[in-house]
Amino acid sequence: MFYVALKNVAANKNLYSMEFSIDKSVEILERTPALLEHLLNGISNEWTLNNEGGETWSVFDVIGHLVHGEQTDWMVRAEQIVSKTAGKNFSTFDRFAQFENSKGKTLEQILGDFTALRMANIEKLRQLNITEDDFNKTGIHPTFGAVTLTQLISTWVVHDLDHIAQIARIMAKQYKEQTGPWVAFLKILQQ
Amino acid sequence: MFYVALKNVAANKNLYSMEFSIDKSVEILERTPALLEHLLNGISNEWTLNNEGGETWSVFDVIGHLVHGEQTDWMVRAEQIVSKTAGKNFSTFDRFAQFENSKGKTLEQILGDFTALRMANIEKLRQLNITEDDFNKTGIHPTFGAVTLTQLISTWVVHDLDHIAQIARIMAKQYKEQTGPWVAFLKILQQ
Repeated sequence: MFYVALKNVAANKNLYSMEFSIDKSVEILERTPALLEHLLNGISNEWTLNNEGGETWSVFDVIGHLVHGEQTDWMVRAEQIVSKTAGKNFSTFDRFAQFENSKGKTLEQILGDFTALRMANIEKLRQLNITEDDFNKTGIHPTFGAVTLTQLISTWVVHDLDHIAQIARIMAKQYKEQTGPWVAFLKILQQ
Repeated sequence: MFYVALKNVAANKNLYSMEFSIDKSVEILERTPALLEHLLNGISNEWTLNNEGGETWSVFDVIGHLVHGEQTDWMVRAEQIVSKTAGKNFSTFDRFAQFENSKGKTLEQILGDFTALRMANIEKLRQLNITEDDFNKTGIHPTFGAVTLTQLISTWVVHDLDHIAQIARIMAKQYKEQTGPWVAFLKILQQ
């Protein structure tokens, strides 16, 4: 009883909810390119060109998807939200554009593209000089309707972390059969 | 019908199973410290000291766990397997040792500890001059019984990737509430 009560107090305290801030968002956004370059540049193709089976994505596909997001999604939408003149309706994001766009490129090339685009987008974000007054300004998402600038930038950050976890999972699965009985202890292989 | 048949061919080909190699294992093992240092050094404490609620681990706890693995688990067990004189029974790994061992240390300190221990362990691994004749040599795991050197080293690699994914997930959850309706599109927030 007492133990259960204590756990509920912890759950109610909601320990894991940070307040939104542009600076803390940029802390993640600016680290992702270096993290990916350190993990992936020069590594064997089997880690990056294999997928999780069937129609799933390889690491190469995921990097192409991140490139397309930098080109057409995050900062385009942020600028629509804060602009006094631009339309507020977001374009639909193409989740499969990378299969065409990355053709004929190496992993190193698309990683370099991602790094350059991300750094330019962080610079654009800083130049918007966003203040707390802008946090609740909205644009119109094709599925969700009105979404705020806070929600957009938070999602950009979590989207990075989601794909970092996905990349780790795709790579881990290349060795799934090799782990033998340990497969039972490795949560990433159950997903 | 044709589409289904094609998907089955892909599934049967088992595209996502690499052959084990020491070199390809080291490709991951040697990248993990730099990846973690690039992601975590200098970042705000909220990203690294908060957890996923209740009794879950923070990023700080995960790094402490990785340190303890370098000290007591992976290479200790690899040396037991290939040694002609050592006992073959592995000690039980303490999954909670980091709560005592990391006390009073900063994240930067335990990251530095991890990097130094990992680099020393990779050097030890190289000095064992493992050949294919060693791959199926065994040690005795306290739960699984006989496990091979291939299974141990593969698990070391996947264990890194599992905790990289976990770190991304812990960090992502700090912004869960901030993503608003996008929470439905972000798989990492459902785990």
